[in-house]
Amino acid sequence: MRPLFHPATDEIGLEAILHALSDPVRVAIFADIAGGDCSQTCSAFACVGDRVIPKSSLSQHFKVLREAGLIHSERQGVELRNTSRCREVEARFPGLLPAILAAHAVNRQRG
Amino acid sequence: MRPLFHPATDEIGLEAILHALSDPVRVAIFADIAGGDCSQTCSAFACVGDRVIPKSSLSQHFKVLREAGLIHSERQGVELRNTSRCREVEARFPGLLPAILAAHAVNRQRG
Repeated sequence: MRPLFHPATDEIGLEAILHALSDPVRVAIFADIAGGDCSQTCSAFACVGDRVIPKSSLSQHFKVLREAGLIHSERQGVELRNTSRCREVEARFPGLLPAILAAHAVNRQRG
Repeated sequence: MRPLFHPATDEIGLEAILHALSDPVRVAIFADIAGGDCSQTCSAFACVGDRVIPKSSLSQHFKVLREAGLIHSERQGVELRNTSRCREVEARFPGLLPAILAAHAVNRQRG
């Protein structure tokens, strides 16, 4: 099985982060992972808000988040366990993720 | 001539902003407009860094920035004059643009 690609901290790019979080489903998934205390499986996100997300789209969303350097994914049996890389991104781009997550919270409140 | 579409402040969306600024040319153009004191024409950006940007791509980039609510464009003869809407975006998503512009500055420094 191919190892999962994760960019090194100093290779995390601003454009990739903004692109990854410019999708409403991905930013919702990421906000949940970033706000959670423990790692989460992909299948925990089969529903995001009112939407049911097909398994194939879900895998693609997690891949984009992982390749942007936003999450760390680890295979555990047939599942992937996902944790956020907020601390590493914070070291590279201070304040960026807190600002985006705050804006996401505003967005969700206002609908 | 059709009027140029600008979203109202409360219709400015997080996803559209992140998408608009996830492109290296667009974020560079926006950083310049946001940092400038006066309005700038599109043709002022025929070169961004080392890159020469074709006129048609440039128009498309300005359209994406405008429709995301990041800039205000006004026709003046055959030119468009562009100013940032930072203050309005700040009212909707406090701290978001300063954080993205700071990350862009870090990105540019490190290459």
